[in-house]
Amino acid sequence: MTATRLCRTFQTAPAAVPRDDSAKFLTSGLTSDGFQTPDWLVPDIEDGTAPSMKAEAVDNVVEQLPEYAPDFAGHVLPRVEWAYDDQRFRDRGREQVRRLAAEVGDHLDGFVVPKVGRIDDVRDAAGVLAAAERDAGLDDGALDMAIIFETATARSDLREICQFAADSRLEALIFGPVDYTAELGGRALDGDRPRWDGLLEVLSNETSAAGVAAIGGPFDQLFHERAGVTYYNAEGYADQVEHEATIGIDGSWSLHPKQTAQANRIHMPRSDELTEALRKVEAFNEAKREGTGAVVVDGQMVDEATYRNFANTVQTVRAVDETHPEQTAEYYEERLLDRALSVELRFN
Amino acid sequence: MTATRLCRTFQTAPAAVPRDDSAKFLTSGLTSDGFQTPDWLVPDIEDGTAPSMKAEAVDNVVEQLPEYAPDFAGHVLPRVEWAYDDQRFRDRGREQVRRLAAEVGDHLDGFVVPKVGRIDDVRDAAGVLAAAERDAGLDDGALDMAIIFETATARSDLREICQFAADSRLEALIFGPVDYTAELGGRALDGDRPRWDGLLEVLSNETSAAGVAAIGGPFDQLFHERAGVTYYNAEGYADQVEHEATIGIDGSWSLHPKQTAQANRIHMPRSDELTEALRKVEAFNEAKREGTGAVVVDGQMVDEATYRNFANTVQTVRAVDETHPEQTAEYYEERLLDRALSVELRFN
Amino acid sequence: MTATRLCRTFQTAPAAVPRDDSAKFLTSGLTSDGFQTPDWLVPDIEDGTAPSMKAEAVDNVVEQLPEYAPDFAGHVLPRVEWAYDDQRFRDRGREQVRRLAAEVGDHLDGFVVPKVGRIDDVRDAAGVLAAAERDAGLDDGALDMAIIFETATARSDLREICQFAADSRLEALIFGPVDYTAELGGRALDGDRPRWDGLLEVLSNETSAAGVAAIGGPFDQLFHERAGVTYYNAEGYADQVEHEATIGIDGSWSLHPKQTAQANRIHMPRSDELTEALRKVEAFNEAKREGTGAVVVDGQMVDEATYRNFANTVQTVRAVDETHPEQTAEYYEERLLDRALSVELRFN
Repeated sequence: MTATRLCRTFQTAPAAVPRDDSAKFLTSGLTSDGFQTPDWLVPDIEDGTAPSMKAEAVDNVVEQLPEYAPDFAGHVLPRVEWAYDDQRFRDRGREQVRRLAAEVGDHLDGFVVPKVGRIDDVRDAAGVLAAAERDAGLDDGALDMAIIFETATARSDLREICQFAADSRLEALIFGPVDYTAELGGRALDGDRPRWDGLLEVLSNETSAAGVAAIGGPFDQLFHERAGVTYYNAEGYADQVEHEATIGIDGSWSLHPKQTAQANRIHMPRSDELTEALRKVEAFNEAKREGTGAVVVDGQMVDEATYRNFANTVQTVRAVDETHPEQTAEYYEERLLDRALSVELRFN
Repeated sequence: MTATRLCRTFQTAPAAVPRDDSAKFLTSGLTSDGFQTPDWLVPDIEDGTAPSMKAEAVDNVVEQLPEYAPDFAGHVLPRVEWAYDDQRFRDRGREQVRRLAAEVGDHLDGFVVPKVGRIDDVRDAAGVLAAAERDAGLDDGALDMAIIFETATARSDLREICQFAADSRLEALIFGPVDYTAELGGRALDGDRPRWDGLLEVLSNETSAAGVAAIGGPFDQLFHERAGVTYYNAEGYADQVEHEATIGIDGSWSLHPKQTAQANRIHMPRSDELTEALRKVEAFNEAKREGTGAVVVDGQMVDEATYRNFANTVQTVRAVDETHPEQTAEYYEERLLDRALSVELRFN
Repeated sequence: MTATRLCRTFQTAPAAVPRDDSAKFLTSGLTSDGFQTPDWLVPDIEDGTAPSMKAEAVDNVVEQLPEYAPDFAGHVLPRVEWAYDDQRFRDRGREQVRRLAAEVGDHLDGFVVPKVGRIDDVRDAAGVLAAAERDAGLDDGALDMAIIFETATARSDLREICQFAADSRLEALIFGPVDYTAELGGRALDGDRPRWDGLLEVLSNETSAAGVAAIGGPFDQLFHERAGVTYYNAEGYADQVEHEATIGIDGSWSLHPKQTAQANRIHMPRSDELTEALRKVEAFNEAKREGTGAVVVDGQMVDEATYRNFANTVQTVRAVDETHPEQTAEYYEERLLDRALSVELRFN
């Protein structure tokens, strides 16, 4: 997993909003700190920006990145316009990519391309990035690509798209349930869209097989209201992110700094998970020294395969500690963190 | 979506039953009215008709259609015999298609072919229809084909089958859970077959990608009994149809006029859905006029993608109103219907 | 379905454990009786055996099989080492297969190969068995192959792997959820791994389309503890096995004789299922004699398709009765069993 692929949080920020300071959300994303810092910040020139403000959105990205990107701990990948079924969107997207690569390419980690269709459309989008990269004089492969996975045709070609990803600049697939549900003609009869469990399973599988990142879709019920008081819907979002983590989705979409703060935490092992993992890893290490291939700890068999699960938990903590030591320091007790950083991880 | 593909309801009627009037159910289907009129009426020469009555079943269709089809508001597609793994069924099916096309081809919209297997078998079935169409002197493509999707091999080839559909007379896939479960060796340990959620998701996706219709499977627990009284199981069927609608399955299988009356309604937007959709569409139209790309209505973000969902709801109402104005007039308050018919739907 | 494919139970037994009698579990598996006899006994040289004891594990299998296999009612397929992503495992696996085929090939029904990847890796494993079979002078095709299906790449290639199975020695796919979850980066946030419902559905489908067996994954929460008393977790395992049976998974993984005793029973029709099936079969036989193609029994429509479901239930009882008459005699009342063995099963 390259650095770009570490994506607990994928936070979109409208690149231009109709306020006095049209770059307000872009700036606040780029200057966030602590657990509110997203692993990826995605200046949104597509659906989050009004049609009449697209040009200003690109201007804002061009102006803000040189000032804020150097001190921003995460990665920056603007979402440009694109649509597999509309040439006008693809033309605008190509121009947005070209201009951003040329003017602020050094501050960009790549681009997010929405509404891709079949594998040929994904290849076309990758070609647009390659051309812009070349024209801007950037290193070959400097610009990563992520795609929003939100059409019936992209779902149909998922396997081919991920196989393409294995050898290309395509580094992540992000689920887009709103457009996806609309394409399929789905209805929220009881107030909720389907969760598309089957799709998420296959997305987790194919991205894992290809070694690229999978990111869940946005959660738009940001706030609840009760008896006249509006409050942040912390439960709803956490439930979704926990489900994503359970099935091996690598990161979650965030629409708000509070969501980022939650998803960054949920995609880290909890203290009790880490404690259990360390106990199992240590018991198995001990059993191995004594020549036993499998041990029973707390009534659960631990063998080579189970061991790998627990070792993964420890390795995730080490990865976060490396890039965000302030987060691990805040999240874990010092003694537990020390154990995680020092325990021996042995694989066959 | 062509007219044939509009299929809220797929009602099968045995084409011959062992009664004095062996065409009883066929006649009642062809003369149904109001919400009991199915979008598709399927005279069933296959599993619903006894082996000894197949010939009489074909006779009945030949006799009834000239009399009733001209005044029937829906489409008529008989289900003939077929089986990917038994040549005798395919031979009988070919002869049934040939005779019906030759004798009442002008009153038919196509045929339903059950128990297809891999893509080659589907192509063979399409070839049988093409030959019958030619021999009967019908226009090229006059006969649509729908297939019952109920074998492990058809599920395995679903993607190829739908890609074939995009360029052929194949217009709809209908799920057949009974045969499907039997092929897989599934068991109803708690009284119910599996719902096959994963299959239904992929069916909804691939048919959407190909632009053809997906129809759910039959619900055979038609009646319940309590304390000696038997009653229509309105709850069970409605639950299934609502689930299908939620995941973008376009229509539902009906075994009874009451089921048709329910499914026709469920596959129309409810008044509260339509009201909400209109509110969101109107708010977003307003926001767009003011230059904002996304607005929050009732705590939910509405952007271009969300907008499409709500616009689809309005468009469905318009489609039903065009073909069945008596249904929309009965189902919606006049003021609400007027708003749906007149609101501006704007896409990028 | 060949005899090898009859696999209600797939019981792994570590081939060597660090005890005075290192073959203890192997012997007890080979000498089990009644409902504790697994359809397949799998001497485990892979994850269940410590790295330092692999050689002794092979020795144990070589020594035990000539003594116990002739009287063992089930099949014997050792699990050897293998890993699509590590040549050292494949080298050791090839040597284990070669030696076992050469020395006790006559007592073996085949091998279980774990951690296979894409279709090419599966072909390679089949080639290793073919070479060992030839070198050992065994009949062509004497050694069946089963694979543990537990990697993202194998899931990605599932359809191709099953199509290969249709024409090869590959006879069964066994799900391995622990390694699978680890590969996808899944987490047991509430204590449980995901059940991977979508994967299991597709596994059941593709194995059915290819005519090979599908086996569920191990259930490792063998025991529960309450107030100081540890007890066998009969509920947890039965729930899993019942779910597998519902969706057409042919057999279940067992880690313990008690699990074998449960799974052997659950993969037989229950008495009430058999009673209902017989009632429906008999009613439909009667209706057919009278010329009706469909009848309603207890409010449920029975037609040709439904009939096949009920006939399958009867046929399963007959298959178990043929190989394990002591199990059917214990499990069913004599009168019910007699009806199942004598009722007419008529298909079109």
